[in-house]
Amino acid sequence: MVATRDRILNTSSELFGRQGYAGTGMNEIVAKAEAALGSIYHFFPGGKDQICEVTIRISGRIYLELIEAVLDEAPDIVQGVDDFFSGAAAQVVATEYADACPIATIALEVASTNEDLRRATADVFASWLNAASQRLEHAGIAELQARQLAVFALSALEGAFVLSRAQRNIDAIDAAKSYVTAAIRESLPKARRPGRGVR
Amino acid sequence: MVATRDRILNTSSELFGRQGYAGTGMNEIVAKAEAALGSIYHFFPGGKDQICEVTIRISGRIYLELIEAVLDEAPDIVQGVDDFFSGAAAQVVATEYADACPIATIALEVASTNEDLRRATADVFASWLNAASQRLEHAGIAELQARQLAVFALSALEGAFVLSRAQRNIDAIDAAKSYVTAAIRESLPKARRPGRGVR
Repeated sequence: MVATRDRILNTSSELFGRQGYAGTGMNEIVAKAEAALGSIYHFFPGGKDQICEVTIRISGRIYLELIEAVLDEAPDIVQGVDDFFSGAAAQVVATEYADACPIATIALEVASTNEDLRRATADVFASWLNAASQRLEHAGIAELQARQLAVFALSALEGAFVLSRAQRNIDAIDAAKSYVTAAIRESLPKARRPGRGVR
Repeated sequence: MVATRDRILNTSSELFGRQGYAGTGMNEIVAKAEAALGSIYHFFPGGKDQICEVTIRISGRIYLELIEAVLDEAPDIVQGVDDFFSGAAAQVVATEYADACPIATIALEVASTNEDLRRATADVFASWLNAASQRLEHAGIAELQARQLAVFALSALEGAFVLSRAQRNIDAIDAAKSYVTAAIRESLPKARRPGRGVR
């Protein structure tokens, strides 16, 4: 039974991420997850909205763990952010421009139309921003500036995903990576800046 | 007759921009545009896909003219980009976080599902990037760097729109504005940098 629920969520996550909320029908989830419509309503009595909200929160947690892992494994914050953008670009290319941010498409669709789902996307973005801010602060950047840098880095990545998926190239992710890592490097206390050669 | 066609396009543009492609039904366009379904198919025999493509291209041209006007009216390119981000933030607030980029929601939805519409969004992004690059070059920045800066500026704005609409505040647009204008300023030849006091 757990396997069925997981299959439903994995399928939904992929479909919602790639084609959005409105473009993903329950029938498509049923067919792709090889689950009966009845079992979907057994696990998710709230239907599509409930599946979507659970999917947003689960994808959000998985992506949060990825952000934390990539930033924490790197020798310094500049390299960590560089690695994260590079990994994102590789994923976009590997999936032929299908998989970028798991929640951005839904976020734009529901921002003015579905308050519960909008709040779920806002919570997820907030969790990512907190993780990034904390690590920027830990690298020696003052709280307010760390926060602003995190917001800027996430904005640049999200927008680069929009352009990359539309234009089918990773120029935007590369450009965002250069300017974001440069801005972070310049915000670090001089004594804690990694050498240029590290990148 | 022209009035009906315009009414259909104005309505579609607003609906597609705010809630996306899949979330906007022909019936909703009919009702909001106060047009008969027959007259919609008279003007757009290709139905929803055709209306959406025309809408993408028209919204793209209107936004292009806005980019050109704001950048050309400002005393320098840094102030022009600053003004554009400020104007975008004001528009987002004035419409209660509904109207940001007219094509981003559709771009993410169709990137992996509708090749004609994807190409329309890519064409529009390319036209905006060309306008911005040209003006950055005109300000004295070398061609390749001007291009990369334009891609970065548009990415930062698009992503800031995603965060701002989801979080219902303009922190992301403000942060993007600071870092983008700083990056442009630093890319200008020293002799052509506007004084800090100008901003």
